Amino acid sequence: MNSHSLYKTLAIFGVGLIGGSVSLALKAAGQSGTVLGVGRNQDALQEAIERGAIARAVSPQEAAREADVILLATPVGQFQEILRSIKPFLRPGVVITDAGSTKGDVAAAAREALGELLPRFVPAHPIAGAEKSGVAAARAELFTGKNVVLTPLPETAPDALAKADALWRACGANVAHMSTETHDAIFAAVSHLPHVLAFALVAEIAHRPNAEQLFGFCAGGFRDFTRIAGSSPEMWRDISLHNRDALLQEMQAYQGRLSEIVEALERNDGAALEALFTCAKEARSRWLVKN
Amino acid sequence: MNSHSLYKTLAIFGVGLIGGSVSLALKAAGQSGTVLGVGRNQDALQEAIERGAIARAVSPQEAAREADVILLATPVGQFQEILRSIKPFLRPGVVITDAGSTKGDVAAAAREALGELLPRFVPAHPIAGAEKSGVAAARAELFTGKNVVLTPLPETAPDALAKADALWRACGANVAHMSTETHDAIFAAVSHLPHVLAFALVAEIAHRPNAEQLFGFCAGGFRDFTRIAGSSPEMWRDISLHNRDALLQEMQAYQGRLSEIVEALERNDGAALEALFTCAKEARSRWLVKN
Repeated sequence: MNSHSLYKTLAIFGVGLIGGSVSLALKAAGQSGTVLGVGRNQDALQEAIERGAIARAVSPQEAAREADVILLATPVGQFQEILRSIKPFLRPGVVITDAGSTKGDVAAAAREALGELLPRFVPAHPIAGAEKSGVAAARAELFTGKNVVLTPLPETAPDALAKADALWRACGANVAHMSTETHDAIFAAVSHLPHVLAFALVAEIAHRPNAEQLFGFCAGGFRDFTRIAGSSPEMWRDISLHNRDALLQEMQAYQGRLSEIVEALERNDGAALEALFTCAKEARSRWLVKN
Repeated sequence: MNSHSLYKTLAIFGVGLIGGSVSLALKAAGQSGTVLGVGRNQDALQEAIERGAIARAVSPQEAAREADVILLATPVGQFQEILRSIKPFLRPGVVITDAGSTKGDVAAAAREALGELLPRFVPAHPIAGAEKSGVAAARAELFTGKNVVLTPLPETAPDALAKADALWRACGANVAHMSTETHDAIFAAVSHLPHVLAFALVAEIAHRPNAEQLFGFCAGGFRDFTRIAGSSPEMWRDISLHNRDALLQEMQAYQGRLSEIVEALERNDGAALEALFTCAKEARSRWLVKN
């Protein structure tokens, strides 16, 4: 083991796009510890071994007994059961982090499952993904220059937070720290709401009697607008439910904005429409310059 | 002049992305007639000459006197004034087509301005565009394999319709014919609504006190979802107003779909959310296979 390695043994629960990419990124960054994989799908674990993402597949108990760092990269809905099942076997000083897109529910699950070991848990959300999923799509550069948000709990141990911070930075990410509530409010607005809006548009068109004709005239703008409606329905069902309150608040605000546009249309108020469209175009242009 | 050329003289009003690309596409297809440009911006006309899109710039009256085919590729709001000003000078047998994104308002403007010459007008909507505008972005392949919708009026002369059809096919496009009403309903759903939704999302975020923080965590999904909010506010103001009734109907339907999602969230109905998201993902996948 390299004396500078951030871990002797890293156990990854869920070796898909994110879990696999974390392993590949850490190896590319020179981290020399052993990486173990835990999962339900034997074919996926075998593929992860072949891609060099994990050294071997182990049971949850083995992972807990051997690992000094654990990453939960399964769907968020499985976290509580995993944490509960591994808690009796965890090593002293272990650091557990995750890759879930919601954080309030993850914090609650960890609090419930880990009890006195809660200080070892550092909730994290890597803002990186791709249309494709699975370890076949994993790559060492997935997190390069991307944001990872850590949402430490009041109980989180400073050394665990520092280790998780270093781990995500080693993957090439920019790391930000904020509260659970701030995180969930931000991502309801900039990610969860747009996903729901894209799903809703495609579903609305698909439900029409003349859906085939309508789809026949969809073009490039539609393709880009609805790209995120190609995401996993199960994952977005879970994200929607897990961040329900913040998402509902965003949907209410958005419906208000749509009503404003409806009213402008009804009174033929071109100036109001142009002002809103211009505000959006200019804000997006400013954002693009920085991104 | 090539005896097979579709026109002796083609006059293009508004030599920007669309007008310029029509000229370049026709030349690339071997059409050897003369192309004249009409516009308000002398620099743009000079650039169109330098790019080989037009032979020279002329006044609206000259264009009407010389052209056997006329293309209106200015913003839709200028059509009525242009048609009224050129009507007294039009050649017998002239064919006039356009490139406007809305058709009900264009048909009304043509009816009002052309009177007994209405049969010479063939409304058209090329489903092609780009984020960039202006003749600098024009290219001969812009319409290759793209749809162009012709919406002939009851009065449209069969020979004019055939000539416009051949002209757009010569640009490389697939040409469909449908009624004005069908066109406007389809594009309200698959184009105008998504544009309004994207503008609304960016405007909603931009209006927040913490807008800068929110934009700081926008990622690739947001970029694609909002690409169409980078479109021209003036053009989309006009499209929204010109296709107001169909757009209002679409916004109402969409708000109903959003309310359905809000209600599913409120009753924690994961199955309903997953069903809607799955319907959308599968419909989009089927569409992608064909596009």
